[in-house]
Amino acid sequence: MPDIQTLRFADRFEGITGSAIREILKLLNRPGMISFGGGNPAAAALEEDVVARLAGEVLHKNGKAILQYGPTEGYAPLREALARWLPRFGFSPEPDHILPITGSTQGIDLMAKALLNPGDVVLVENPTFLGTLQALRLYQAKIVPVPTDEGGIDPDILEELVRRHQPKMLYVIPTFQNPTGRTLLAQRRPRIAQMAEQYGFVVLEDDPYRDLRYRGEPLPAIKSYDQSGWVVHLSSTSKLVSPGLRVGAVVAHPSILRKLIIGKQSSDVQTTTLSQAIVAEYLNQGLMEPHIQQICGMYRAQMDCMLDCLKAFPEGTTHTLPQGGLFTWVQLPGKLNAQKLFSICVEQGVAFVPGTSFFVDGGHEDTLRLNFSNSTLEQIQRGMGLLAQQVKQALKG
Amino acid sequence: MPDIQTLRFADRFEGITGSAIREILKLLNRPGMISFGGGNPAAAALEEDVVARLAGEVLHKNGKAILQYGPTEGYAPLREALARWLPRFGFSPEPDHILPITGSTQGIDLMAKALLNPGDVVLVENPTFLGTLQALRLYQAKIVPVPTDEGGIDPDILEELVRRHQPKMLYVIPTFQNPTGRTLLAQRRPRIAQMAEQYGFVVLEDDPYRDLRYRGEPLPAIKSYDQSGWVVHLSSTSKLVSPGLRVGAVVAHPSILRKLIIGKQSSDVQTTTLSQAIVAEYLNQGLMEPHIQQICGMYRAQMDCMLDCLKAFPEGTTHTLPQGGLFTWVQLPGKLNAQKLFSICVEQGVAFVPGTSFFVDGGHEDTLRLNFSNSTLEQIQRGMGLLAQQVKQALKG
Repeated sequence: MPDIQTLRFADRFEGITGSAIREILKLLNRPGMISFGGGNPAAAALEEDVVARLAGEVLHKNGKAILQYGPTEGYAPLREALARWLPRFGFSPEPDHILPITGSTQGIDLMAKALLNPGDVVLVENPTFLGTLQALRLYQAKIVPVPTDEGGIDPDILEELVRRHQPKMLYVIPTFQNPTGRTLLAQRRPRIAQMAEQYGFVVLEDDPYRDLRYRGEPLPAIKSYDQSGWVVHLSSTSKLVSPGLRVGAVVAHPSILRKLIIGKQSSDVQTTTLSQAIVAEYLNQGLMEPHIQQICGMYRAQMDCMLDCLKAFPEGTTHTLPQGGLFTWVQLPGKLNAQKLFSICVEQGVAFVPGTSFFVDGGHEDTLRLNFSNSTLEQIQRGMGLLAQQVKQALKG
Repeated sequence: MPDIQTLRFADRFEGITGSAIREILKLLNRPGMISFGGGNPAAAALEEDVVARLAGEVLHKNGKAILQYGPTEGYAPLREALARWLPRFGFSPEPDHILPITGSTQGIDLMAKALLNPGDVVLVENPTFLGTLQALRLYQAKIVPVPTDEGGIDPDILEELVRRHQPKMLYVIPTFQNPTGRTLLAQRRPRIAQMAEQYGFVVLEDDPYRDLRYRGEPLPAIKSYDQSGWVVHLSSTSKLVSPGLRVGAVVAHPSILRKLIIGKQSSDVQTTTLSQAIVAEYLNQGLMEPHIQQICGMYRAQMDCMLDCLKAFPEGTTHTLPQGGLFTWVQLPGKLNAQKLFSICVEQGVAFVPGTSFFVDGGHEDTLRLNFSNSTLEQIQRGMGLLAQQVKQALKG
């Protein structure tokens, strides 16, 4: 009789080991651990009393519909509320062109499902969000890295790669990128939208950090320059209201949205209506703007504190200077190995994510990602002190 | 410049048009429509006040964790509550072997993702749940129908098909099947589990209706006879508590569960924690048993009313005699076409789902599925009267 261990899984799982971050996150539940690891909002940013009040209100107002099956296309009041909210990104979709999704990760999955045959080329910033790398690998995409500089993707290099590889899609996090914290320059944005139309590839613009801006002026999304539907925009309430509620949104041309909806029917039928209704009410009651202002004040101080602490790191340490978001990105001096450093630091009670997993082809072992949103100023000072100490020690060793 | 209409979607979408049911459901929002179409719980079965109270309680007790990112593996209190609940199915999983999912539809998607390469054979009851057919088609499975009788799948025929096709998976709804309402005979269940082990294929046992039993004795799940991990069990709270909350559960051998968890990381990261916490609390407060008793009383009356109304249908009409669940399945007399009947009936204000879409290869145009859970006794009498009248008229025409 065949043992269950002989079961052959699908080819798409070859070489897939699961998200390094999700594995690291599990370590971080240890009491006393200072975590610069995840991309979590601060506990203080999560308003359980507000959410409880809104849950009660929406259930008393429209409870039968919220608990019943709803349309895959999303809860109508949320689509309408998002249509009023999204123009801050620089484009104004009709409610019908907005699809609420189960976190913006589902948007990446559904876009890959809609577009990709095995071997299709997807261009990504290098480094990029490793959740996306894993999702694309599960669709057996050929992932081609696009080198980036302080201003994000260089359109000239991009154009060369587009001509060479004829990609199906470009995945880009334009603002306060994960993992680098960098922002795509304003003048590069229309050029990328125009290139998508010219060469016929889809831009998947993943834009969850846009409202976490602590300095400088907001920039229009690439989608705002989209003339003909080649740009698909993802946003999320995970970094603003709550990741546990799992509410994101896709804005796409109707012909693409139709495929996403069919894909979503088979993925989860619909996003939890209670979450959708809570977010709709949160927007409709005007709670988003003041909340963003409040958390931006908090996160700005945390970011500044972290960047300040980096000054005490040994010479040769370099890092990005984000104007917002959740992360800064560090290159260690002396070719130090961040994974070795990680093992030591976790024992000392401080965690981060080694940078190598964010690169399409690995390497770059001397890089790491630091998150500042989920630690208090005191934790940042203490954790960064520990980290600096370990870097110094490693340099000596 | 390429027009967006030239965009080539993935091959998996070839021939996929979206769920017929979801399209029909949209028609049913018309006021006054009597719907035997969906698989919706009765409005009276949805307890918005209870859910509002539970939402408040869990958010006040554990709000920060509920709103923060949680593990892909699920909210620990829900896994523990499910470990206490699931033994009623005839098996007793550890919390670690249970994965909460975003409705049991996600379980079908994740299993297909984990197991299927294009062309892999999946056996299904014929007819079967059309959401599953669509999900399997999106994974380019070769779907092979298994004929069924009043007692579900015949194991002898199954064994023949297994030998001939060497399937990767058998998908089966053993109890109050969708769409037929039939139940797999008790003596056939251990045989199917044993066959899975013998031939090395996975049984995906989709068991959302098990607790909606109005007559007869409960039967152990196929999973209860699983010796070595070849049976994967799906359950759901959608038909019991609320479909809008989107909470289901997979029970699987750790080596399979590991792939499902990796697949889920890329699908939606995690199921909405608030939904998970509400369901956990619902179970922990002992609300499930009395609620099931209450809705079973209600649905039994509705089913009996519908079956009674069927007696007034023209001679030659046949239908199943379910002992529970949400559906009965009708074969019309005189080779009448249920899709034509559907168009006429919708204009008259009564809807159902034509049976053809539930069959792997279509055909069977004289069949239809009737749902009784989402209509009052008065609506059932009126709607079935209208339906009988149209059947009579069609027979004359």
